[in-house]
Amino acid sequence: ADVEAGKAKSSTCVACHGMKGVSMIPMYPNLAGQKEQYLAAQLKAFRDGSRKNMIMAPMAASLSDEDIANLAAYYAKLDPTGK
Amino acid sequence: ADVEAGKAKSSTCVACHGMKGVSMIPMYPNLAGQKEQYLAAQLKAFRDGSRKNMIMAPMAASLSDEDIANLAAYYAKLDPTGK
Repeated sequence: ADVEAGKAKSSTCVACHGMKGVSMIPMYPNLAGQKEQYLAAQLKAFRDGSRKNMIMAPMAASLSDEDIANLAAYYAKLDPTGK
Repeated sequence: ADVEAGKAKSSTCVACHGMKGVSMIPMYPNLAGQKEQYLAAQLKAFRDGSRKNMIMAPMAASLSDEDIANLAAYYAKLDPTGK
């Protein structure tokens, strides 16, 4: 997976999940330092509808498997404290 | 919410999510430092079946709203680096 490509793709994610993967919004999860496999599995679940979320479904709909792998690799590598 | 009660209740969670909320298993998410409201919402979603997961459904089935509030408060307060 390409971390830099994931970072580029993450521009859509930052409004809810924060510039460094730590959300400013209590209802939205932090992504920074989360498990890469877990993040990829959740994005695929949002994409295929097996995990239902009205916000994440359209976000994930246009992602390729490669986009998902890159995004998961990028967020997994971020410092979980948001620094 | 009662953080200490949440800690006591978390004994069931540690096998997959780690002693300090940082999972040893790539497929399972870290919980330490995650957003309290998000954690509570996910436990309720597992409990009511709106988020489907064969492992988490039975785990969440017996939790009261208070248990969920306590668990979410406990995990949200843990250091996200697992220290």
